[in-house]
Amino acid sequence: MKALEDKIRAQGIVKAGNVLKVDCFLNHQLDVSLFREMGKEWRRLFADRPINKILTIEASGIAIACLAAEAFGDCPVVFAKKAQSVNVDGDIYSVKIESFTHKRVYDVFVSQKYLGPGDHVLIIDDFLANGMALEGLTEIVRMSGATLEGIGVAIEKAYQGGGDMIRSKGIKVESLARIASMNDETGEIEFL
Amino acid sequence: MKALEDKIRAQGIVKAGNVLKVDCFLNHQLDVSLFREMGKEWRRLFADRPINKILTIEASGIAIACLAAEAFGDCPVVFAKKAQSVNVDGDIYSVKIESFTHKRVYDVFVSQKYLGPGDHVLIIDDFLANGMALEGLTEIVRMSGATLEGIGVAIEKAYQGGGDMIRSKGIKVESLARIASMNDETGEIEFL
Repeated sequence: MKALEDKIRAQGIVKAGNVLKVDCFLNHQLDVSLFREMGKEWRRLFADRPINKILTIEASGIAIACLAAEAFGDCPVVFAKKAQSVNVDGDIYSVKIESFTHKRVYDVFVSQKYLGPGDHVLIIDDFLANGMALEGLTEIVRMSGATLEGIGVAIEKAYQGGGDMIRSKGIKVESLARIASMNDETGEIEFL
Repeated sequence: MKALEDKIRAQGIVKAGNVLKVDCFLNHQLDVSLFREMGKEWRRLFADRPINKILTIEASGIAIACLAAEAFGDCPVVFAKKAQSVNVDGDIYSVKIESFTHKRVYDVFVSQKYLGPGDHVLIIDDFLANGMALEGLTEIVRMSGATLEGIGVAIEKAYQGGGDMIRSKGIKVESLARIASMNDETGEIEFL
């Protein structure tokens, strides 16, 4: 999606350690009108899918998912919650996810009330790198008996392989900006 | 706001310990079309204020704030981040906030890049109980040199006094549902 790639080129900052800072429009300050356009693009890309629920994960995923929901007929958004430790009882679906950014393992959970066999789910998240977070969310969808219709990602670091790993399982993944490489010395970012 | 009060009456669950669960539309599953209406209501209530930025706090505040931003001409949203401990350097505004829900103290911070003297800020949050979180956010606005135009809250537990405490400082607070009392035995909720 050109508008997103342009924004990343103009405002993204490449840092040492394979970090892309997009705080100024995606992770800390939020560009609502860009998110609305991203929602429309996912609607176009998943036009053939009977999506009736969007699943995301706190915190930055929430903003993108809510604006995307407008393009999907104001369908409900459910966000998976992170906890350092969860009392796993019968009322939640819970998985462990290792955070690439924070080098930490979270328990991530969704209440069973908000995801079930009648749901056709689009998962939305801001980043796809090694795919750990999205794998956790697909596992939650599987546990719930809902149908996973696909995954919409804002920025995929394609060279880290998480996207290919998930696609190899037959899941449709649509990333609106796919980074082929980035260089923290020159600041250059190449898209696929 | 009648639509919000009706929703709380129909779907909110009063639990022991003064807890109101509104997971099904505000804190875990999100009702985007309701949030859009709430945004329009805040726009009406703050029509005389030159708001150009919305400040909220992760996680549930993000959804409401983003939909509200649409009513304020797609102004940028900034969300304060919670951390268990922050390396306080010159680049952030940081305060400590005690969470009523989690009985824990968080460091909460906003990057200096995203808030400054040119900003006219509306703070938005989902709950107002003892007012600790909102006091922290107003302190961040003060540190930044921005102008605080007011505070928009979804649900105020009016009997806990946080709202009165903030209003007594001359800050305009508009809560869309103000709870006078609730009873965890009968499930009854009375609004002001």
